[in-house]
Amino acid sequence: MTAAALDVGVLGLGPGGLAMLPYLASHPHARLAAVCDIRPQAALPDGLRAARYRHAQELFESGIDAVFIATPTRWHAEHAIQAMRAGLHVIVEKPMCLTPDEADAMIAAARRYGRQLVVGHSHSFEPAIQLMRAAIVSGRYGALKAINAWNYTDWMYRGRLPEEFDRAAGGGVVFRQGVHHADMVRYLAGDSPASIRAVIGDWDRRRPGDGSYTAFATFPDNVAVSLFYSGYDHFPATELSFGIGENGSPAPAGYALARRSLYGADDKHRAGLAAQMARLTPGRHPAFFGILIASCEGADLRIDPEGVRVYGDDACLTLPVAGLPLGRHAVLDELLAAIDGRPPVHGPQWGKANLAFCDAMVESSLRSAEVILPRDAPEPAVPVLPPSLVMEHFRSFSP
Amino acid sequence: MTAAALDVGVLGLGPGGLAMLPYLASHPHARLAAVCDIRPQAALPDGLRAARYRHAQELFESGIDAVFIATPTRWHAEHAIQAMRAGLHVIVEKPMCLTPDEADAMIAAARRYGRQLVVGHSHSFEPAIQLMRAAIVSGRYGALKAINAWNYTDWMYRGRLPEEFDRAAGGGVVFRQGVHHADMVRYLAGDSPASIRAVIGDWDRRRPGDGSYTAFATFPDNVAVSLFYSGYDHFPATELSFGIGENGSPAPAGYALARRSLYGADDKHRAGLAAQMARLTPGRHPAFFGILIASCEGADLRIDPEGVRVYGDDACLTLPVAGLPLGRHAVLDELLAAIDGRPPVHGPQWGKANLAFCDAMVESSLRSAEVILPRDAPEPAVPVLPPSLVMEHFRSFSP
Repeated sequence: MTAAALDVGVLGLGPGGLAMLPYLASHPHARLAAVCDIRPQAALPDGLRAARYRHAQELFESGIDAVFIATPTRWHAEHAIQAMRAGLHVIVEKPMCLTPDEADAMIAAARRYGRQLVVGHSHSFEPAIQLMRAAIVSGRYGALKAINAWNYTDWMYRGRLPEEFDRAAGGGVVFRQGVHHADMVRYLAGDSPASIRAVIGDWDRRRPGDGSYTAFATFPDNVAVSLFYSGYDHFPATELSFGIGENGSPAPAGYALARRSLYGADDKHRAGLAAQMARLTPGRHPAFFGILIASCEGADLRIDPEGVRVYGDDACLTLPVAGLPLGRHAVLDELLAAIDGRPPVHGPQWGKANLAFCDAMVESSLRSAEVILPRDAPEPAVPVLPPSLVMEHFRSFSP
Repeated sequence: MTAAALDVGVLGLGPGGLAMLPYLASHPHARLAAVCDIRPQAALPDGLRAARYRHAQELFESGIDAVFIATPTRWHAEHAIQAMRAGLHVIVEKPMCLTPDEADAMIAAARRYGRQLVVGHSHSFEPAIQLMRAAIVSGRYGALKAINAWNYTDWMYRGRLPEEFDRAAGGGVVFRQGVHHADMVRYLAGDSPASIRAVIGDWDRRRPGDGSYTAFATFPDNVAVSLFYSGYDHFPATELSFGIGENGSPAPAGYALARRSLYGADDKHRAGLAAQMARLTPGRHPAFFGILIASCEGADLRIDPEGVRVYGDDACLTLPVAGLPLGRHAVLDELLAAIDGRPPVHGPQWGKANLAFCDAMVESSLRSAEVILPRDAPEPAVPVLPPSLVMEHFRSFSP
């Protein structure tokens, strides 16, 4: 690591890896040094340059400081441990891994090799969610009481590997998308749930797998959370998010492009590619993972096109996100801060707890019963506080 | 009852009674014959004329055929039984009564006196909900899998009697508003829930009572339902319903008028009255009880400003409600049909089951546990089918 920049490699050039590239290239204290993908045809986007490797171990030994792991979920634990053994700090995509045992092995490896491990990107790195958390922890609006979030997407019909629908391999919307809901509500509540009840849906015989979920969670102090996700490409949640999609850009025009191009006779490549690029292109608005409304005693909080809309006792106002780091920059910031000695909120314990949330959804759905979760292990947890610059940003708009 | 019209009296000129008056006055086969309110100052709106009584028994013996009971909930059972004993058919406002025992007494009275009892108005009488049910029972979009509904209103800050916040007297948002959610999802699912988990909130010390709920319900065949309601006048759900409120009219302009006028120093009367009139004035759009999205295997269904928006496999289309009876007309239609020999969907068993839904929410919240509900009593239930004209209307737009 030079004084000026962390040299980062990217392992896996699927959607997760590709989404990170522009943020790596534009971060003031990181540098895109190398990429690695087993598939010869996996390409770097135009305009980006980096050393190129085919095998993970080659990447790990290429002299980089850190690696962003965006391989299929079932490889996360092995690759992360291998990278830390090689002396690298690690960012691993969500979901962190497949099982609690794998998570524990990753935690142990980070300790053994003295390396930092951050799990992300997930939506609680996004400035609007962090600003919402800042508003909650400020106490300005009273206690948090409820969070409600829905997302309706085309997840099930995007171009996918078969294992992406295999629950045992971390596939399906519970592990791939529910982990975002888990991450956001745990971040906003600053805690882990006390109980979870969920029903998981598998609604299209032609595309089997976990395609939807309805979940109800309680958090300490009786905070109630309800979540819904459908990946079946009917109603688009962007109708509830000002037409803005997951990367802060306007949603592509046209109805149900993903399913219609997958099942239709023509336009397959064009429509699928257009939708994928629309998801990857960073926009100027906050990132919307569907709609989420947090209710405190004294205000409801909702993301709007410029930031966090506060529906307070006396008036509405928007806390703008302009000036705050973008979500994937915040992932890199958190790793840099961790290397600098500040324990990351989104460390491996965080990722493990998000996975436990998803596991509880599965267990509840299988058992048709509410799952009571054990309280977190007694080892010291990192308080769920946004970076100080987010707290200061909040205070500057809420005197 | 003349051949041309059912003579109907209205007992109680609170918001429920006032809301029914214009629909009674405009129904082709009913007539507003008389009204009754114990409060001398309770007035008929301009332009409406009816005989006027102060005491319920006077109204019941005034020669009317039927009575619409819109007294405070704790009087519903007594007034309904008294009216049936006097030979009247009855429409009783939701919630039907306070307890299952009261419901059973009302059911027994209807049988003993051979009178019809319909529970309403509730939102499943609204044409958009009935058309949604028609779409579901048609099988055109596959099986129903999930329903999600949120409402954010100013319920807690409207002008209210103290007992309207007393849970034991049927007060608070669970019994007064949750009963609408229960009614809509039971109607759309065509069944009663198998389990309910809920958290009820009481978030404003200055206005104690049940002011919010988050609920998760499962129905047979693994249909998952999530519900949220807040009556605390922060985020307005009309932002998610095209700016249209509960009576199909545009929501009044201005932020948090109800709470601000209740707690503010001035404008109290004006703002409160304006909000109340806006709620009562029938509009040209469907009635929106917040936002509700029903998900079938092959389509998501959502109310839009003209009817039911169907987000299908291949395209979106709107099934218009124009031409269907308005919700409060449908209440009268159902009573007329019942008198004519067709058992009402919204009979007393229906109202009792909606009440059981709300009771289960309370029990779950008190016990912090999921409540498993017994299957309906084995006596023959009325199949949950919309009136045939709604089914025909659906088929005419969905060949």
